[in-house]
Order: sequence, then C-alpha cells, then structure tokens
Amino acid sequence: MGARHEERRRQIAEALLAIIDRHGLDAVSLRDVAAEAEVSLGAVQHYFRSKDEMLLFALDYISERGTERIQRNLGQGERPPRAIVRDILAELVPADDQRRAELRIATAFTARSLVSPNLADHLRTGYAALHDVLALLIRHAQDAGEMPAALDPERTAATLFALAEGLGTHVLIGHRDPQGALAILDEHLDRLAATAR
Amino acid sequence: MGARHEERRRQIAEALLAIIDRHGLDAVSLRDVAAEAEVSLGAVQHYFRSKDEMLLFALDYISERGTERIQRNLGQGERPPRAIVRDILAELVPADDQRRAELRIATAFTARSLVSPNLADHLRTGYAALHDVLALLIRHAQDAGEMPAALDPERTAATLFALAEGLGTHVLIGHRDPQGALAILDEHLDRLAATAR
Repeated sequence: MGARHEERRRQIAEALLAIIDRHGLDAVSLRDVAAEAEVSLGAVQHYFRSKDEMLLFALDYISERGTERIQRNLGQGERPPRAIVRDILAELVPADDQRRAELRIATAFTARSLVSPNLADHLRTGYAALHDVLALLIRHAQDAGEMPAALDPERTAATLFALAEGLGTHVLIGHRDPQGALAILDEHLDRLAATAR
Repeated sequence: MGARHEERRRQIAEALLAIIDRHGLDAVSLRDVAAEAEVSLGAVQHYFRSKDEMLLFALDYISERGTERIQRNLGQGERPPRAIVRDILAELVPADDQRRAELRIATAFTARSLVSPNLADHLRTGYAALHDVLALLIRHAQDAGEMPAALDPERTAATLFALAEGLGTHVLIGHRDPQGALAILDEHLDRLAATAR
C-alpha cells in the first residue's frame, strides 16, 4: 500500500472513530463519515460498503493501534515477558480517552456480533490470537523464572484474559475506575507469581 | 400488583426476549412485541414506550429470573456462603439457552448504555448491588472458615465479579465453552481458598 493510500485510510478511520465516540454506533452513516473526513462518499466506500464492514474496518484499525502501542513499549529496552503480559492486559482497560473510545467500539462490535455470524468469526479469530500470545508470553515468563513453572500457561492465559476483559467492561460502564481495575490486575499477577503449586 | 397484571407482564417480557433472541435488538419494534405476545400495542405501551424503556423492562425481567434461580438453590437445604457466591458468579456465564438469551440482552444493554446516560445509571446501580452482595457473602464465607480471613472482601468480590463477567463475554462470543469457563471460575475460587496470606 502506498503512503497516500495509508494516509487516506487513517483519515477515514479517525473520522469514523470520532463520530462513533460522539454519537454511538447506531447513528453513524457512511455519508457522515465522508463529511467528517472531508472526502467523497466514493472514497469511503472504497474501504467499507455496509455497517458491518465499517465496524470491521474500525476494529482492525484500533487493533493495529493497540499493537503499535505495545510494540512501542517493547522498543524501550529489554522488557521482561511478565511486563509484556501486563502491557497487553492493560490495553483492555480504558485508562485514557483514546482507549476508552476504542473499547466503546469493541463493545458495540461484540453486541453486534451476537446477531451477525460473520462478525462473530472475525472476533473469535482475534480473541484466539490474543489468547495464544498471552500463553506464549507466560511460557517465556516461566522460563525466565518470573512465574511459577507449576502454572498451566493456557489456563493462566485464559483466566488473565477473562479478568482483564471483565475489568474493561466494568470501567467502561463506570462501575470501577481505571486505577482500581489496574490494581486488581496487578494484585492478581502478583498472586500468580507467589503461587507455590 | 394483581396476578393478572403479573401474567400479562410475563407474557410481554417472554415475547420480547424471544424476538431479541431471534433477530437481535436493533430489529425489535413495540409492534413486533405486541404481535408476538398476542396483545394490543396499547398493552405493550403500558410497560414501555421507547426502545430504551423496552430494554430496561427486559433487563429487570431477566434480573428477576436470575434472582429467582439463585433463591431456588438457596431453598434446597443449608447452602454454605461460598457455594452461593459460586451460584451468583455462574449466573454470569451462559451455560444454557435461557441464560444465553439473557446475557445477549445484557450485552446489548451494556453497548447501548455507553451512549445513553440513563441506561448507564441503571446498569451501575445493578452492578453496585451485585458487588455488595458478593462482598457480604465473602465475609460470611470468611466467618464460616470457608475463605481465608486475610483476603480483602471488597477486592476479592471485585476480582471474582470481573472474572465472571469476562468469562461470560468469552462464552457468549464463542471464544470459550461454558464448561471451560466454569472450570476457570472454580479453579480461581479454589486458589483463593488456599491463599495463606
């Protein structure tokens, strides 16, 4: 993809996120996105032609942004595997406005995927990939002596993923604040590290 | 409320749940609900006049059903507090068709509450109440020697609630099966009981 194509794609994605953040997903039309991004309707339709495609586009974009944030952290010197696990899990907790907007979209996507098999497939693929990365990093953390060898990496990854997912939902609806949620996550990680079994 | 009023309310709620389960929330109109319940539009409007009110009505109804299921369990002899904690958390995991339908609606409600402050308030009240019940039961479990006294009841309740919430989402989207999710929950409860600190 050329740089110009990439820039156009970014421009449309940012416009879409801004509208969803202001008005929610129900109210967004392709025309609105074109107006907000100051491009033609045809330019928008190059990227998505329906609401489901629009949502897929937004989800892919925010996944990329999340991955980039994690990779930026990785770039800052040697980062131990357990810290990377924590970085990834913390991405699921809306601790700032950008992540909050992203997780609102992810929640809309989840709700919609319950009545759209196509979206559900896409979602499951992403979840399975995230689970596998977590399980792999937990194995690295065990090899590095940061986590007890007795822990089952798959089970531990599944538990951490579900905990972070639930904390994300609780912060998003205002049941808990981001700092409290991250403290719960850290306590759970510490408790795992202290497990003797 | 009279028995007849209660029966009518139940009839409309069941119709609403059936339609949402078949077609998702976006597609439901008050007219559809009236047709499915075989009552007049006026009868439906007695209970809700807008989509948000409809969702509130459905959520209240499924909360009541969940509470009734838990109370039925309680009625079966002496039930230790830790088992009640487990009953409540398991309600958040869609292990059968009824619960699955209920949790789909709860997810739609969550997504919608992100753009509707009125719904968000309602949701937060319910979440806070559930958290308080869990924290209270954990204190009882500690008094009964079922859980270590060193655990902070509030923190433990918050962690268990978030874990069950996340597991529920993971089952709902098909990332995990219900048995696997309940096994993770039970393992976490066992691990808590074994905590020495």
